Amino acid sequence: MATLASRHPLDPLTADEIIQVSSLLKAKSPDTSLHFKIITILEPPKAQLRPFLIAERNGGTQPRPPRKASSLYYHLGTADLFLAEVNLDTNSVDSIKKLAPELHGQNDIDESMALRDACVTHPKVLAELKKFQLPDHLEVVCDPWPYGRDSEKRLPRYVQCYLFARAKHPGSNHYDTPLPFSPVLDIITKDVVEIIRLPTGSGPELNHDSVFQPHETKEYHHELQKQPDRTDLKPLIVHQPEGVSFTIDGYLIKWQKWRFRLGFTWREGMVLHDVTYDCRELFHRLSLSEMFVPYGDPRYPYSRKSVFDVGDIGAGVAANNLALGCDCLGVIKYFSFVISNSQGKPVDKSNAICMHEIDDGIGWKHTNSRTGAVSIVRSRVLVLQTIITVGNYEYVFMWHFDQAAGLHYKIQATGILSTAPIDSGATVPWGTNVNEGVMAPFHQHVFSLRIDPTIDGDKNSFIEEDSVAMPMDEKNPFGVGYVTETNLLSHSTPSDSAPNRVHKIINSSSINKSSGKPVAYAIHSPTKQMLLAHPNSWHGKRAKYAFHPFWVTAHRDGELYAAGDYTYQSHPDNTSDLGAWADRKDKTEDTDIVVWHSISLTHNPRTEDYPVMPCDTMTVSLKPSGFFDQNPALDVPQSTQKSNGSRLVEDTALTVAVGGQSCGMRELKL
Amino acid sequence: MATLASRHPLDPLTADEIIQVSSLLKAKSPDTSLHFKIITILEPPKAQLRPFLIAERNGGTQPRPPRKASSLYYHLGTADLFLAEVNLDTNSVDSIKKLAPELHGQNDIDESMALRDACVTHPKVLAELKKFQLPDHLEVVCDPWPYGRDSEKRLPRYVQCYLFARAKHPGSNHYDTPLPFSPVLDIITKDVVEIIRLPTGSGPELNHDSVFQPHETKEYHHELQKQPDRTDLKPLIVHQPEGVSFTIDGYLIKWQKWRFRLGFTWREGMVLHDVTYDCRELFHRLSLSEMFVPYGDPRYPYSRKSVFDVGDIGAGVAANNLALGCDCLGVIKYFSFVISNSQGKPVDKSNAICMHEIDDGIGWKHTNSRTGAVSIVRSRVLVLQTIITVGNYEYVFMWHFDQAAGLHYKIQATGILSTAPIDSGATVPWGTNVNEGVMAPFHQHVFSLRIDPTIDGDKNSFIEEDSVAMPMDEKNPFGVGYVTETNLLSHSTPSDSAPNRVHKIINSSSINKSSGKPVAYAIHSPTKQMLLAHPNSWHGKRAKYAFHPFWVTAHRDGELYAAGDYTYQSHPDNTSDLGAWADRKDKTEDTDIVVWHSISLTHNPRTEDYPVMPCDTMTVSLKPSGFFDQNPALDVPQSTQKSNGSRLVEDTALTVAVGGQSCGMRELKL
Repeated sequence: MATLASRHPLDPLTADEIIQVSSLLKAKSPDTSLHFKIITILEPPKAQLRPFLIAERNGGTQPRPPRKASSLYYHLGTADLFLAEVNLDTNSVDSIKKLAPELHGQNDIDESMALRDACVTHPKVLAELKKFQLPDHLEVVCDPWPYGRDSEKRLPRYVQCYLFARAKHPGSNHYDTPLPFSPVLDIITKDVVEIIRLPTGSGPELNHDSVFQPHETKEYHHELQKQPDRTDLKPLIVHQPEGVSFTIDGYLIKWQKWRFRLGFTWREGMVLHDVTYDCRELFHRLSLSEMFVPYGDPRYPYSRKSVFDVGDIGAGVAANNLALGCDCLGVIKYFSFVISNSQGKPVDKSNAICMHEIDDGIGWKHTNSRTGAVSIVRSRVLVLQTIITVGNYEYVFMWHFDQAAGLHYKIQATGILSTAPIDSGATVPWGTNVNEGVMAPFHQHVFSLRIDPTIDGDKNSFIEEDSVAMPMDEKNPFGVGYVTETNLLSHSTPSDSAPNRVHKIINSSSINKSSGKPVAYAIHSPTKQMLLAHPNSWHGKRAKYAFHPFWVTAHRDGELYAAGDYTYQSHPDNTSDLGAWADRKDKTEDTDIVVWHSISLTHNPRTEDYPVMPCDTMTVSLKPSGFFDQNPALDVPQSTQKSNGSRLVEDTALTVAVGGQSCGMRELKL
Repeated sequence: MATLASRHPLDPLTADEIIQVSSLLKAKSPDTSLHFKIITILEPPKAQLRPFLIAERNGGTQPRPPRKASSLYYHLGTADLFLAEVNLDTNSVDSIKKLAPELHGQNDIDESMALRDACVTHPKVLAELKKFQLPDHLEVVCDPWPYGRDSEKRLPRYVQCYLFARAKHPGSNHYDTPLPFSPVLDIITKDVVEIIRLPTGSGPELNHDSVFQPHETKEYHHELQKQPDRTDLKPLIVHQPEGVSFTIDGYLIKWQKWRFRLGFTWREGMVLHDVTYDCRELFHRLSLSEMFVPYGDPRYPYSRKSVFDVGDIGAGVAANNLALGCDCLGVIKYFSFVISNSQGKPVDKSNAICMHEIDDGIGWKHTNSRTGAVSIVRSRVLVLQTIITVGNYEYVFMWHFDQAAGLHYKIQATGILSTAPIDSGATVPWGTNVNEGVMAPFHQHVFSLRIDPTIDGDKNSFIEEDSVAMPMDEKNPFGVGYVTETNLLSHSTPSDSAPNRVHKIINSSSINKSSGKPVAYAIHSPTKQMLLAHPNSWHGKRAKYAFHPFWVTAHRDGELYAAGDYTYQSHPDNTSDLGAWADRKDKTEDTDIVVWHSISLTHNPRTEDYPVMPCDTMTVSLKPSGFFDQNPALDVPQSTQKSNGSRLVEDTALTVAVGGQSCGMRELKL
């Protein structure tokens, strides 16, 4: 383990450091118990960090910025929320700030578990269950959801509990039996505030007297399937007999001219720092800033149904323990981390990120048809993956690094649809019936990818580039000409997509010697429908970032989260979210900018998405666009059968020498 | 080899059959020599074919439709073009039709080679070269392009030759030295019609006196690189120790509940027939119908620069001979075919299609966070791939079959940019300078994917489905509700994309028992900018299909090609292309329809695309959307390390038993 002195200011916190932080803060409040929400690394100010990182890369000797942490915590049993900063080097508390009473901390596991128990054992809830005539062989399951907001009211911190019932098997799908009432609990008192009857018909009407109706369940767990598994899938094995192509030094990773640092935080999960290709600077920091999931059912209380999965829950704390050969295939490097629990103690987040190489098809090819000379390389890709479980849903987040200096952010949605009860024979226009009595409402997932660029340095600008047909006139007499038109966004602003538009981050002071134009990286992302909620709705007010696919702001330290630092039951004050930062109209030309990309998935469930959803994949690509002088993958070696040991299906008894090994093959049945 | 009697009516032609066709036709014209353009399989009328295919699938005994071929040919040295149909079973010519004089056959290799030679040895061309002072160590290369059209004139069949110069190495990049004049040749007489001086400045001005200026070349071939290859890429090997998961019977392929027939034609290349999943009908025929590549430089003669890569050239004839471990990695099945040459003789198209399995990440996953039960399957994908070289460019066409009944058409563009000469210091707004003296003009690639669906049978309809916010009123007081709205296209028509729109093929008579709605397959494809040329331009008139991303027509036999059967120098007559078929306003509701998807890539070259372009990938997904009752991949077995032998990077000396084998690993340097 690295000594404190050698630890990098960006390295995730260690178990010792978490204890150090919580001990220091407990000592500051000897008379109260603390309920820790977050203990996490506090990155140095950018003005301090950038020179350090540059010197580090270039072998210079810049003093290391102090290693710091921050913590968000309550005084237990109260609504008093504090934000503290701790210097780990000096073992001292830099500051403690009591936050305004309308700001709330996010959900945490310990609190959620206590609320679940409080809910399903509460006499009022038990009375409702009895009235509903739930059979004894089914167990009640409580999913505590962030309460959200549908009015101006400054309510205490609440949870909205959605209830389900399940059979005893550990893989049983409780989402197949949603119950028609929903308790609201006060998080501090753990008391039931009210029990809301859910609408179960085709409209807003309520049925207060419904009782349990059995139906044939749809299960996803293999042991619960009525049909046997398919048996005709043969093993596929990825070998790297000479080892992997990457190197790792702590959290510093190098692969195929790429160099970057891996980070991991409670809230954002996987973070990339100081990304360069072939020693040229590309990105200072890449992170998942936020993710909002609003539901489209207009009926009360679904009108509130929405989650900020990053701000209300946390992508780091929700990260799965990834398993060899399941979440990742081939030769795998796992990264493990520690996070804090509510007592301020370290909890292992083992295997929260995996890293491996894949073959991604052809890299580039050309055949000179006159001479028959074939040039071809395969595309090798480095994958960093993390998977989070947020209640019913799973999200896979991946960075794919390619050899041509392309960096691809891939998001996959899988897991189980959020379900609601529906009466037999009823249908609704805002949802899909996926089983008898089970409706999956339409919803959206709007992710915010925060891109802090350093395209050949700090002085960057953000442009919209459109392809525009020339008018059919004397300069274009045949009507075939088209050109590009560029709009530089000189002040902080949102920016919309268009089928003909490419967004680019440019550096006007670095000119590509072939094209004669400023170097640029383009952001390629499909044009998508943005937030469907009304701008005057609370969803709209709380998630302004979700209305536009792109935003550019001038960099300021501490502005990391598109919907603000405190999203739980948030009541935006128009100063602390991306909308507010853009409204400042800061200069964003030839300066230190941040680009925010809102990635929207409008998910109107299919029957095929149930009882578990095949991965739905979105890809955002950051690609050089006049950044390099020529194809940066020109020097990838020609692909050969000798190096990858590919074989013909017909060579049923082939024995080939690969990487010094002899590998027999069984006979093929063809 | 299959006997004639056992050959399937959809199987590609054999060498014997090509000889049979050409012999029969030569015998019909004993007094003239024939120049064959195409000899290809002629598929049975759909009304005859469908019952045969259904009976075949169900083990019934429907008589086999006769096996037929068609041929397009000239009387050598004339402009007389004929279309013949031949019955291979009866060994007889069914019909010969002399085509209208304005219709032209496509390019063919034999003709192109003769034209190249005629061009570069023509005294007028040699005189121009001498005037240009091309050094002796450089060889002139001629790329004959389809002449295209920029006026009403009914010209003879011409080629527009673009000239380049190259060093002697077989991998030398001649596109790095484009010459500033372009001969036009008459294809029949092989004579030079004119030599056109190309504009090389920032505008339309011509420089008739320019002479060769040397510059530092950019080469893509490995042997010509100034920098050594990167050396840190370790081998990655895919093993299938128990063999592959597919079975092959002739051209019938089965894999993971999929069943389909593979076809291959001169013009379209790879074709899929009779595609079913789990014995349910999905698609009758899937094919690349057309591909148009117009250039955006408005100056003469670039105003004509455009190619129909399918209609003018042919995707089958241009297919590469795919090499093990280069174009395909793992355990590979190759399919070889024969095509005809201009003498009507068979020519091998070896390894024109490859098929193999890949691991494609996670299929679906859910963790029950209460019980810790993890369910996860990996996604195995079957890949069918073909690659074509069309002059400077390469296209990779792939069908990816997944286990959740999704079928994905992937197109990759690679190869070399089409280049044009440009004066030192000049720039143009319709192109990118990629090297000194070398400009790569903006252009588009508009593919047409022809989808002949059989979603649960023949009676299909095509719908647009939009997600629409509800008005903020008493039914939606919180402003969060949204619903879908459906527009059924009841008569043949184009249809546009929108960020909020999903296009679906539905069967109104087949109702999903979970959702209560008609079964459907959705077409997912990013919203793209369509043809930028003016609708009144010749590009626009000749490629009407390229103005709209979707079209639906009522099926008619013989309507396969979106820009018409005869695209070479085409002068559309408004009866024989997709625009005309849509204009018929045929009923397309609950009937046998065809859906056409125009896939557009607006390619404004990057410096990184030169001297060879990293693959740019587009994906169109055909996915069930309320077709199945539940996730069709539920029965994929849980993924385990035991079956895929994945390992930890740290297990440097690990020996694991995988599929009965013992595979040592070398030590890792980490």
